[in-house]
Amino acid sequence: MLRIGMLTSGGDCQALNAAMRGVVKGVCSKRNDVEIYGFMDGYKGLIYSNFKMLTSRDFSGILTRGGTILGTSRQPFKLMRVPDENGLDKVEAMKHTYHKLNLDCLVILGGNGTHKTANLLREEGLNVITLPKTIDNDLWGTDMTFGFQSAVDVATDTIDRIHTTATSHSRVFIVEVMGHKVGWVTLHAGVAGGADIILLPEIPYDIKVVVNAIRKRAEEGKRFTIIAVAEGAISKEDAKLSKKEFKEKKAKENYPSVAYELAERIQKKMDQEVRITVPGHTQRGGSPCPYDRVLATRLGAAAAERILEGDYGYMMAIRRGEITKVPLAEVAGKLKTVDPEAGIIKEARMTGISFGDK
Amino acid sequence: MLRIGMLTSGGDCQALNAAMRGVVKGVCSKRNDVEIYGFMDGYKGLIYSNFKMLTSRDFSGILTRGGTILGTSRQPFKLMRVPDENGLDKVEAMKHTYHKLNLDCLVILGGNGTHKTANLLREEGLNVITLPKTIDNDLWGTDMTFGFQSAVDVATDTIDRIHTTATSHSRVFIVEVMGHKVGWVTLHAGVAGGADIILLPEIPYDIKVVVNAIRKRAEEGKRFTIIAVAEGAISKEDAKLSKKEFKEKKAKENYPSVAYELAERIQKKMDQEVRITVPGHTQRGGSPCPYDRVLATRLGAAAAERILEGDYGYMMAIRRGEITKVPLAEVAGKLKTVDPEAGIIKEARMTGISFGDK
Amino acid sequence: MLRIGMLTSGGDCQALNAAMRGVVKGVCSKRNDVEIYGFMDGYKGLIYSNFKMLTSRDFSGILTRGGTILGTSRQPFKLMRVPDENGLDKVEAMKHTYHKLNLDCLVILGGNGTHKTANLLREEGLNVITLPKTIDNDLWGTDMTFGFQSAVDVATDTIDRIHTTATSHSRVFIVEVMGHKVGWVTLHAGVAGGADIILLPEIPYDIKVVVNAIRKRAEEGKRFTIIAVAEGAISKEDAKLSKKEFKEKKAKENYPSVAYELAERIQKKMDQEVRITVPGHTQRGGSPCPYDRVLATRLGAAAAERILEGDYGYMMAIRRGEITKVPLAEVAGKLKTVDPEAGIIKEARMTGISFGDK
Amino acid sequence: MLRIGMLTSGGDCQALNAAMRGVVKGVCSKRNDVEIYGFMDGYKGLIYSNFKMLTSRDFSGILTRGGTILGTSRQPFKLMRVPDENGLDKVEAMKHTYHKLNLDCLVILGGNGTHKTANLLREEGLNVITLPKTIDNDLWGTDMTFGFQSAVDVATDTIDRIHTTATSHSRVFIVEVMGHKVGWVTLHAGVAGGADIILLPEIPYDIKVVVNAIRKRAEEGKRFTIIAVAEGAISKEDAKLSKKEFKEKKAKENYPSVAYELAERIQKKMDQEVRITVPGHTQRGGSPCPYDRVLATRLGAAAAERILEGDYGYMMAIRRGEITKVPLAEVAGKLKTVDPEAGIIKEARMTGISFGDK
Repeated sequence: MLRIGMLTSGGDCQALNAAMRGVVKGVCSKRNDVEIYGFMDGYKGLIYSNFKMLTSRDFSGILTRGGTILGTSRQPFKLMRVPDENGLDKVEAMKHTYHKLNLDCLVILGGNGTHKTANLLREEGLNVITLPKTIDNDLWGTDMTFGFQSAVDVATDTIDRIHTTATSHSRVFIVEVMGHKVGWVTLHAGVAGGADIILLPEIPYDIKVVVNAIRKRAEEGKRFTIIAVAEGAISKEDAKLSKKEFKEKKAKENYPSVAYELAERIQKKMDQEVRITVPGHTQRGGSPCPYDRVLATRLGAAAAERILEGDYGYMMAIRRGEITKVPLAEVAGKLKTVDPEAGIIKEARMTGISFGDK
Repeated sequence: MLRIGMLTSGGDCQALNAAMRGVVKGVCSKRNDVEIYGFMDGYKGLIYSNFKMLTSRDFSGILTRGGTILGTSRQPFKLMRVPDENGLDKVEAMKHTYHKLNLDCLVILGGNGTHKTANLLREEGLNVITLPKTIDNDLWGTDMTFGFQSAVDVATDTIDRIHTTATSHSRVFIVEVMGHKVGWVTLHAGVAGGADIILLPEIPYDIKVVVNAIRKRAEEGKRFTIIAVAEGAISKEDAKLSKKEFKEKKAKENYPSVAYELAERIQKKMDQEVRITVPGHTQRGGSPCPYDRVLATRLGAAAAERILEGDYGYMMAIRRGEITKVPLAEVAGKLKTVDPEAGIIKEARMTGISFGDK
Repeated sequence: MLRIGMLTSGGDCQALNAAMRGVVKGVCSKRNDVEIYGFMDGYKGLIYSNFKMLTSRDFSGILTRGGTILGTSRQPFKLMRVPDENGLDKVEAMKHTYHKLNLDCLVILGGNGTHKTANLLREEGLNVITLPKTIDNDLWGTDMTFGFQSAVDVATDTIDRIHTTATSHSRVFIVEVMGHKVGWVTLHAGVAGGADIILLPEIPYDIKVVVNAIRKRAEEGKRFTIIAVAEGAISKEDAKLSKKEFKEKKAKENYPSVAYELAERIQKKMDQEVRITVPGHTQRGGSPCPYDRVLATRLGAAAAERILEGDYGYMMAIRRGEITKVPLAEVAGKLKTVDPEAGIIKEARMTGISFGDK
Repeated sequence: MLRIGMLTSGGDCQALNAAMRGVVKGVCSKRNDVEIYGFMDGYKGLIYSNFKMLTSRDFSGILTRGGTILGTSRQPFKLMRVPDENGLDKVEAMKHTYHKLNLDCLVILGGNGTHKTANLLREEGLNVITLPKTIDNDLWGTDMTFGFQSAVDVATDTIDRIHTTATSHSRVFIVEVMGHKVGWVTLHAGVAGGADIILLPEIPYDIKVVVNAIRKRAEEGKRFTIIAVAEGAISKEDAKLSKKEFKEKKAKENYPSVAYELAERIQKKMDQEVRITVPGHTQRGGSPCPYDRVLATRLGAAAAERILEGDYGYMMAIRRGEITKVPLAEVAGKLKTVDPEAGIIKEARMTGISFGDK
């Protein structure tokens, strides 16, 4: 008997179901004696032994479905060793569930925070295999995470639609794209949507440069400017603050989000109508794009192969088009950010995009 | 020689280009001696005699294109008789342009405000024919305006995407849909997207009813609640205020928009994560949906027929599937709102949707 | 106790699930003592008493899902009184199932053929209420059927995509749109997609007129011509044949479908590359468009009201924007075709579209 | 003065305009003295000196537009040295145009055939830089071509739609995907769409294996089977034929396309309804997907950099996420096919997909 626990953790994204389907179809293509324990709402289900028994039937027809059939929740890594309200140590509770159910392994789908906990469980002796899911594409060790391209597609569609209405009026449009720490989605959607200005967490902006870029377009006779701004975009002066100072300043300013802050700063410097669009969680929702479905299916099937061989302790990854495995110890805690000197940034600048820095 | 002036006024919407194409193709199918004067940015172009000469070629290939090739702007009706900074009376200026260019007629595409001015020009003796464009579907005299179904499609897509991510987490999601005075788009997108609560300007809501609806869903084991709220949705207490009192209250509260107000009011009454999505101007953008293209094309072609017959003073409309004409004098200044007792409201209630009123 | 039988019959279409959801949500909003018998694969399930018991839970989350959770099949009306291989009279078998299960009523979703049988069951004393589903929009008594607008959207998307590639090459493109007997989908998709020539079953075409329209475009410097042709489009000479002669001729010609026939006839008359696209069953597939979801939900909820009042023998319909009921006896056996003199045809001609007839 | 000739050749695809925009924006971001000669309809424009002068304005707003603003045509490589009807040697004619216009370089966008001619022009002393465009993704030297992912998206959407209608009926559905020589699009769309059987040119199929896979699904209680078949899919027996024998056989069989052949072969072996969908040229049409827009923009901007440095004789390529250059001499004449032993094939098999071979 092969007993597999499975959970999805952190913010949801597209293709979670596709990836789990890949794992289950892959394992069941070779073995008939498989039991699948689906833990509900991420690590929470593992901690409190809340699960449902699933069969391969449950994974049929979910390739194209958004969300996750297991539910998910955020369980911060730093609280994992902090006892809950009943004095329960969460890590010990997870180990207890694992051993009580006599599991052979855990398949964990998640992003950066999830991988820290997954590695901790590995260190505690559990057999763990993980899959890189996040719209942010910020996981170290893989060229791509699933969820990313789908999020880019949604954000780009938003910019596309703004484009047609922008040409009718004379305005500045700000589209706020998901990404608190990294700017991958904003960068790709901004280039794909033909944004005029792209502001990323990795490249602090100067409001004067932004305003000049808007003015320059107006002087060239262009009626509108579209700004794609990542949720975590930051000005040069803010980037110099300590974490504590920054937090205090933002609490005081009390903007609903970065787009509102940016809008006010632009309007203070120039007489210009500004419109804000916040696609928000739509970027995580809907059916995964074909790219993500293929990637998630491949990663899932490759994870199945690791499981069938009893080869644990890895995140499945894609590198140069091939699926491969990366030791969890190497992945955990590392963030893959946009390099301000990367080729894509340089190429974007050549097409006239301003990153607000110079 | 047949000299036609044309302009698009007010907020833009999908299928403006499709409608103008219909007019021009229709007129040019019967006459070779046509001159088309495209006034830029709505009435502004007519006032300041800013136009470009267009041929039927310019209207080829624009059936599917969003926005308007003529540009648009808002020119409030109540300022039409107020002289501009140079002392110019705008109505006289428009008449002057019209007569100077020796126009046979004006084709005006717009919504409610636009129609007031169009009717004024008619009263002043100009030959006017109008087309009902607005995402709001609030024009009296026509069963449907073009732009509406396209906006419903975008707003519904937003709710659809929120749905998949909603099932993964336990949250309340608020989607803010366009509509300051009327709730047509919110109502249709809410029903189409399967929203649990729909809040409209026409049906003032009671926050206690809203919160109870959320609680009831939680008790039934449903993880999430989706609220579609129109920009102009209003609470029962606010509905009792005078216009002035209301304005002062809102200025004091200073919410970025109704979704933020609603979120705060819900969170004050219950411990519940709330997420906000504001698709904003995307609802006006992108390629028109097939429904709107057919409607706009038909209305445009039928307007062409009026022009060829020299039969002016009408808004083209659709009633019971047939294109017809409605005297401008009957249309101007009337708003078509959602009737709280309408069949669709009753049917929506039967499927379990709460309108927050009872 | 209220016992409701439900089935979907004939070719599937979008929004079948949405409509059934509307019925069940509507009934269950007022009564707690409801039993729902879902018959599998259309009348077949009723004949052979193949059903599953469903609860309102089963209808949750299916608003946006294509297909039908009950399955469907075609059961020709003319065979209903013809005994099956075991000598079973199908009508008597259906009555037997109905009475054995002690049903209060049958909810039947279907198109033209389905309605003939539904009316027969009504004549036989069963309580029947029907919903007008078909992509063809050919049901008499309702302004619109659900499934139609979704099919138009898919067919239009096909023409849109062909348009961009058409502008790159010099070719004739034929898009074959669903519709054997009526041309509603082809007409609307053709106008919405900007087809140059539209060929419908209701307007027999002359190949010389078609070829001339292609030539005229080439002379005007246009690189391509797009033809939207309904599956059942017919030439003037073929329209003169008797049904038998026509069948024999087509069997002899042995074209895969009308697009291939048309392509060959064009190529015989002019030296021109022709490309064929057959979207086929994609026109019935995928998530229903928002328009259809609203329509199906409304019709379903209104049917629920009829059921709750015990008011049977009707097809639910939409007329002038309001949901209403139409006696089944009036509907059965009547086909709603495109009137060659209708406003939309005239308007389409004004925009330069050729119907191949003159 | 920098004089750049530009042309698009071969079958069109998405993102051609995006790529040209990238080149022009890139060059014009550094130099003001640029002249752009756009040759019409591929090499034909270069041969017969048919071009238009373009400015950077002409490339504004075309990022999202399908097709190519320059038009395209197929000019077989093997006829390049064969004189035309007027005795003109095409290669000499192209050189003549190039020198007469005093061009600094040629930017050529195309696929496999195009690159052979481009390399020939390079050998003849012209400065050439190329961009890898093709939906087929069969160009050697680059991990990815633009157009590919957009075509996969369209083909996947087709399979998705077929899926929902397939679940309603009991049928076999065949979706014919573009690809005469290589199966990349079919493979990726098949995996993304959850096809049950995928038939590729690179993996000859055995009809008995195909039929068995259909039967096995029926035995497992699955109502339908979806087959994604590449235009160039081939049976094991046909794969053994010489090119001449194969051609003769196919001419004799006279199927409209491979889907019709496959349908007949399946129906000969089992009593099963089969439905065919041929999305055809829609796979080349419509707005490029965001992935392709980013890729095309980056390749275009990187080509601009080569031009600014006067560094010619390369195809721009993407390898491991970075844009790079590959000598034309290495690229020309090589085909990148699907390796039957590749990881993706193995992973696809693990999820239960049959390739019809075993």
